[in-house]
Amino acid sequence: MSYGFAAKRVAIIGLGLIGGSLARALRTHAQIDHIVGCVESETDAVLARELGVVDTVVTDVVQAARGADVVVLAVPVGAMGRVCRQLSGVVGADTVITDVGSTKRSVIAMAQAQLGGAIGRFVPGHPIAGTEHSGLRAGIDELFAGRRTILTPTPETEPDALALIERLWQAVGASVSEMDAAHHDEVLAATSHLPHLLAFALVDTLARMAEHTEIFEYAAGGFTDFTRIASSDPALWTDIVFANNAAIMPVLDRYIGDLEALRGALREQDEATVTACFTRAKAARDRFNRERTPTGRH
Amino acid sequence: MSYGFAAKRVAIIGLGLIGGSLARALRTHAQIDHIVGCVESETDAVLARELGVVDTVVTDVVQAARGADVVVLAVPVGAMGRVCRQLSGVVGADTVITDVGSTKRSVIAMAQAQLGGAIGRFVPGHPIAGTEHSGLRAGIDELFAGRRTILTPTPETEPDALALIERLWQAVGASVSEMDAAHHDEVLAATSHLPHLLAFALVDTLARMAEHTEIFEYAAGGFTDFTRIASSDPALWTDIVFANNAAIMPVLDRYIGDLEALRGALREQDEATVTACFTRAKAARDRFNRERTPTGRH
Repeated sequence: MSYGFAAKRVAIIGLGLIGGSLARALRTHAQIDHIVGCVESETDAVLARELGVVDTVVTDVVQAARGADVVVLAVPVGAMGRVCRQLSGVVGADTVITDVGSTKRSVIAMAQAQLGGAIGRFVPGHPIAGTEHSGLRAGIDELFAGRRTILTPTPETEPDALALIERLWQAVGASVSEMDAAHHDEVLAATSHLPHLLAFALVDTLARMAEHTEIFEYAAGGFTDFTRIASSDPALWTDIVFANNAAIMPVLDRYIGDLEALRGALREQDEATVTACFTRAKAARDRFNRERTPTGRH
Repeated sequence: MSYGFAAKRVAIIGLGLIGGSLARALRTHAQIDHIVGCVESETDAVLARELGVVDTVVTDVVQAARGADVVVLAVPVGAMGRVCRQLSGVVGADTVITDVGSTKRSVIAMAQAQLGGAIGRFVPGHPIAGTEHSGLRAGIDELFAGRRTILTPTPETEPDALALIERLWQAVGASVSEMDAAHHDEVLAATSHLPHLLAFALVDTLARMAEHTEIFEYAAGGFTDFTRIASSDPALWTDIVFANNAAIMPVLDRYIGDLEALRGALREQDEATVTACFTRAKAARDRFNRERTPTGRH
C-alpha cells in the first residue's frame, strides 16, 4: 500500500475533536513511524492512552515536539500563543509546524510573535470539518474525508513546508484550498462563527424565558437541527468569536439590520418584503444543497 | 388487526407534507373505508392519483367533504378561511372538522367566522412534525410516529369531537396534548416560527453579500444543519409568520435585544458575558437532547 504522506514522527498538540480525529486518520491513511499526542493534564493522558489513538501521550509540549518532522497545533485558538512560545527553540531546523485553528489572522499573529526563525516553516491551516462534540472522546474516523482544508500561507511560508502540509491533508481525504488569511476569516465569520453565535444566543434567549422547559418540550426537528451547534464547547467558541471579532462584527451588524427590517415588515403587514426574503433564502439554500450533493460533501 | 381509529370516509383537504403523510399513516394504522384527498388543480390531481396515497382525488372542497365523517384541513394557514367558507353548509351534522395549521388563534378565528353551527365539531390541531420539504411528493410514512400533536379546543368544541380527533392522532403514533390556543401560539413562536425566520434571514443576508458563492462553498456541517429550515416553503411560512405575528413579535424583540447585548460584549472585549451566554445555551441544549433521547423523539 502506498501512502500520500509519510513521516518519522508527528506531534499532535491537543487530542480533542480535530486533533484526535487527525490522529486516527493519519494512522489509517499515512505512513508515520510514531505519532505523539500532547494533552493538558495527567488525567487526560490516562484517558488518551486508554483510547489509544496515538503511540505516545505526554503532557509537555516541548517533549512532544522534540524530534518531530511535523507538529500540528490542535489546541483552542486562545491557547495557540502559549503553545507557540513553548515550541520556539525546541523545534528542529526542518520541523514543519501547522495549526487547525478556526481563525487565521489571530493565529498567524501569535505565531509571528512567538516562533522566531521557525516562522517560515509555519503553515496556517483550517480543516472545515467538525461536529458539536468536543473533548478527548469526540474524535471520529474519517472526519476529513471529502471535506475541505484551507491553508493560508503568509509571504514567509516556505513552499516545501506548504506542500508537505497540503499532502498531509490530502492523505486524510481533504481537498486543499489556499487563500489569504483575511479572506478566510471573513468567509468563516459568515458561514461558521456567526451561525454559532446566533444558535447560542437563541437557545439562551429561550432558556431564560420563564416557561422554557415547556418550550423545549414542544420543539420539533427543525429546532433540533437549528440549535445543534449550540452544544459546541463554550470556551472554544468564546475564543473564536473574540479572535475573529473584526470579521464577525460587520456581518453580525448586517444580520441585525436585516432582522430589524424583517421586524418592521412584520409590524407593517408588509407581506411582499417577507415573502421576497424567504424566497431568496430558499433559492440560495436549495442551490447550496444541489452544489454540494454531487461531490459527496454534506 | 384492531385499529384505534375507524371511519367510513375521511376527507383530507390538501395533500402536501402533512396531508400526504397523514393519508399514508391513516392507510396503515386506521380502518377507513374511503379516504378522499382534495388538491388545488387538475395537474396536482393527476400527480396525486399517480402517487396513489388516497382512494379518490378531487379538486373541489365541497365534493371532497360531502358525506365525510372527518374532514382534515391540511392547507396553508392563509387558505384556511377560504376552505372553511366552502365547507360551511355542506358538512353533515355529525362531521368532525380538524386542521393541522401551525398557528391556532388565527385558524380558530377563521373557523368561528365561517363554520356557523358546525363550530362545535371543529377541533383545532397541530402535529409538531415536519421536514423542510413541501408539495405532493413530500409526504412520508410515519411522519407522526413518536411525535406530538397539540389540540387546542375552544369552549365550543364538543367533547366527543375532541376525543375522536385525539384517537385519530394516536392511531398514527402521535402523543396528544391539549393546551390553550394562545399558549400554543407562544410556544411555537419560540421553537418553530422564530427559528425559521432567523434561518431564512441568515441565508438571505449571506446570499446578498457580494462573495456569496464562495461563502457557501466553504460552509460546513454546522451551517448545513443550521440553515436546513431555510429550504422550507416561502409562501407557507409567510402565512405562518403573519398569522402568528402577535406571538412572534415579543420573542423576536427579545432575541434582537440579546443579540445587541452580545454585539456590545464583543465590541467591549467582555469575554465573561459571551462565555456566560454560550455556557447557559450549551447546558440548555444538552439538557434538551438528554430529555428527548429516552422517549425516542428526535
